[in-house]
Amino acid sequence: MLLEHARGPNNNGCNLPASLAEQIGSYEPLVRRILAAFDGGPLSGTTYSALAEFVDWFGHRIVGSESLEAGIDHLVESLEAAGVDRVWTEPVETPVWIRGKEEAFLVEPRRVPLAVLGLGGSVATPPGGITAPVVVVRSFEELDRRQDEVNGTIVLFNPEWIDYFQYVPHRSQGASRAARYGAVGALIRSATSKSLYTLHTGMLRYDSTVPKIPAASVTVEDADFLTRLADRGSRVVVHLEMSNNHSQGVSRNIIADIVGSVHPEQFVILGAHTDSWDVGQGAIDDGCGVFIGLAAMAYVRRLQQRPRRTLRLVLWTSEENGLVGSAEFVRKHRDEMGNISLALESDFGTFAPLGLTTTSENNVTRCILQRVLSLLAPIGATRLEDAGQRGSDVVKLAELGVPASILLNRNERYFDYHHTHADTVSALNSRDMDRCAALWTAVGYIVADLREMLPRN
Amino acid sequence: MLLEHARGPNNNGCNLPASLAEQIGSYEPLVRRILAAFDGGPLSGTTYSALAEFVDWFGHRIVGSESLEAGIDHLVESLEAAGVDRVWTEPVETPVWIRGKEEAFLVEPRRVPLAVLGLGGSVATPPGGITAPVVVVRSFEELDRRQDEVNGTIVLFNPEWIDYFQYVPHRSQGASRAARYGAVGALIRSATSKSLYTLHTGMLRYDSTVPKIPAASVTVEDADFLTRLADRGSRVVVHLEMSNNHSQGVSRNIIADIVGSVHPEQFVILGAHTDSWDVGQGAIDDGCGVFIGLAAMAYVRRLQQRPRRTLRLVLWTSEENGLVGSAEFVRKHRDEMGNISLALESDFGTFAPLGLTTTSENNVTRCILQRVLSLLAPIGATRLEDAGQRGSDVVKLAELGVPASILLNRNERYFDYHHTHADTVSALNSRDMDRCAALWTAVGYIVADLREMLPRN
Repeated sequence: MLLEHARGPNNNGCNLPASLAEQIGSYEPLVRRILAAFDGGPLSGTTYSALAEFVDWFGHRIVGSESLEAGIDHLVESLEAAGVDRVWTEPVETPVWIRGKEEAFLVEPRRVPLAVLGLGGSVATPPGGITAPVVVVRSFEELDRRQDEVNGTIVLFNPEWIDYFQYVPHRSQGASRAARYGAVGALIRSATSKSLYTLHTGMLRYDSTVPKIPAASVTVEDADFLTRLADRGSRVVVHLEMSNNHSQGVSRNIIADIVGSVHPEQFVILGAHTDSWDVGQGAIDDGCGVFIGLAAMAYVRRLQQRPRRTLRLVLWTSEENGLVGSAEFVRKHRDEMGNISLALESDFGTFAPLGLTTTSENNVTRCILQRVLSLLAPIGATRLEDAGQRGSDVVKLAELGVPASILLNRNERYFDYHHTHADTVSALNSRDMDRCAALWTAVGYIVADLREMLPRN
Repeated sequence: MLLEHARGPNNNGCNLPASLAEQIGSYEPLVRRILAAFDGGPLSGTTYSALAEFVDWFGHRIVGSESLEAGIDHLVESLEAAGVDRVWTEPVETPVWIRGKEEAFLVEPRRVPLAVLGLGGSVATPPGGITAPVVVVRSFEELDRRQDEVNGTIVLFNPEWIDYFQYVPHRSQGASRAARYGAVGALIRSATSKSLYTLHTGMLRYDSTVPKIPAASVTVEDADFLTRLADRGSRVVVHLEMSNNHSQGVSRNIIADIVGSVHPEQFVILGAHTDSWDVGQGAIDDGCGVFIGLAAMAYVRRLQQRPRRTLRLVLWTSEENGLVGSAEFVRKHRDEMGNISLALESDFGTFAPLGLTTTSENNVTRCILQRVLSLLAPIGATRLEDAGQRGSDVVKLAELGVPASILLNRNERYFDYHHTHADTVSALNSRDMDRCAALWTAVGYIVADLREMLPRN
């Protein structure tokens, strides 16, 4: 089908063939049933409470922890209990990083404790820690400009806050950029515009051509405090001690299928990740994504009719350590990549749902998704946006040409909680999760049941 | 003057005598000068930066700490440098409470660290701490109803959040209410609706008729976590260890005067407190109140003309430990209480100023204040509200009949930071502080310079 046949001036610029538009429209009664069940009906509140019980019992789930593996076992049992056709795990070799003692304090101009939270993957300090003067920079440009001042120092990155995505390079690359000029440690202001003395961890990546130096986040408040001291011309000296432990380990991806009635070898994937950072409960990142996936699978399993193709839940492990689980998944399942109609991912919160993103530039695919989302009008989740840089594990599939979508939701506050001690179920609410679960169920079922796979770019 | 003469249908229901209205109106050029100086003029930013330098250098200032006494010395020097006519300190005997080690963790159903922040004045646990089952209650009514379950337990108070003032009794009385039924410890959810795993401390008060038991705040997240566990029927056991130290000490109130030109024995007071809790920087509670007072004194001192009556800055100590400094102040200055025209207090933040409260039920006084505030229209700070229960140190003066006002400001976020590690200058902004300082200067000067004292009730 040519592009100009699919888009027109009306109907979101779409002009799908009548039979296809009609087919999608025929799911309207099903979507109404799904919404009625989740949004005020018998399933109302069940997704949130299942998540709460899970995170209250297992807590956060960093790769390498017993709690992650016990949580994975529990999820497998839950999926078996829900009656999916098959559920299994696949081993994933992964780096393991376990936080040890962390302590920091200002030494000069006076002794003040500084809250720190090591960045994931950071090396430890030498035993006894490091004590060094601090150089404060606002940007990589300033670091480069002041490179002569950096040798033997701890560099504090205190970039102006624009958004998370413009912030992240400071966290991921800051340590190695500073090490290139001889820094012995790095501190990074936490990733938020809404701090209540709140520490945000997250992954760093070392450049293999320079020495690895320890790196930790500090609160916005302390970053600003140290910056003010430096701006006044004070000599600022900080002591930092970290005793993290690095090793290799094995975790597991979970895969669960409801086998398709017509094209069992074709898939629609619902994805999320089981691991979390070792702070809070890992409820918004990404317990909630896991549990709307479980809810959708359980609902579809109870329907009279299977979808035409296989609905597959994939719960990746070791997302936080660098998309390790999804990388292993695409390695092991590479032959299936051409058979995945759509990969859906929820890893940016399950606040009030708004719609989906799409990586697709194929107009028919976009128009199909738009038409499917139009059925979600009763909950206002009809928006289709370009994925842009958004997506985490699903990016590994999208790189291989799989059409991918992430759950759009009112997650303006997501990054307030992200990678902090405040990532608990208290940050979520039950009704929003119900509606996200309903959207997941509806889109997952419909796209799996369409007569054709979504066309690719 | 009769009430009906002062109020009328127009002009905020006020009908002040023409000469008085005219007199107040004559300050309009002065107010314009004050606003021009602070709000974008040469003094713009100076109040905030003076506060920042102070709290960055001295940090928080709990009663009994060296930092509080060094901070008091610094403030005295600053007032001398500003050229006030006299500045001195008055000793205040006060309870001293110093936080020691604090640790808590969930023991059953599984081991989880719990962040705790002891309540001010709490007794320590026995060495080694206490381990006890937890009873969760939502209210004092529920505590009374379930009193038979409380003996030997730690009671967790997790009241529904309405506002700070309805919350406070749980913090201040919870421990003793629980101890009456045999509890061995108390945990209290933190005082906020906006938690990022944020601990809020604050004073408790023991009832002398029951044993004193240790009490600490927990985060909203952990309070909800323990509540969910209990609601599911789990046995919940917590370990709590606290090693606080109680003693008696001496701190100091600061008093600084710009002596009145006509009635040196009469006063308008600008008040705030120097001490803070031992978390954050004590910037919003109450460093900011201290520094708008300093700014006002410095401005008035530089004017050609002294006000008719004495403008007195009083910086109380040991407010947090129970209004100890202001109680001593009224004891020592009882003879002057009849000569205080108005006592102004800033202890609820210096966000964008809105006006003043008043304790006065005297219609002329209210109308005068209303008319004075009308001069602050350029910054929108014209509101006069009943004080109600609002006020802290100034309440001690109001109890003796002194007309009292507190600074009304857009402090909706004040209690997000209040008594937490996030009480730093990062919570404030420079422009709002400039405008609060301008309001303080204008109202302080004008009321001190009016021909008559404000009439009392």
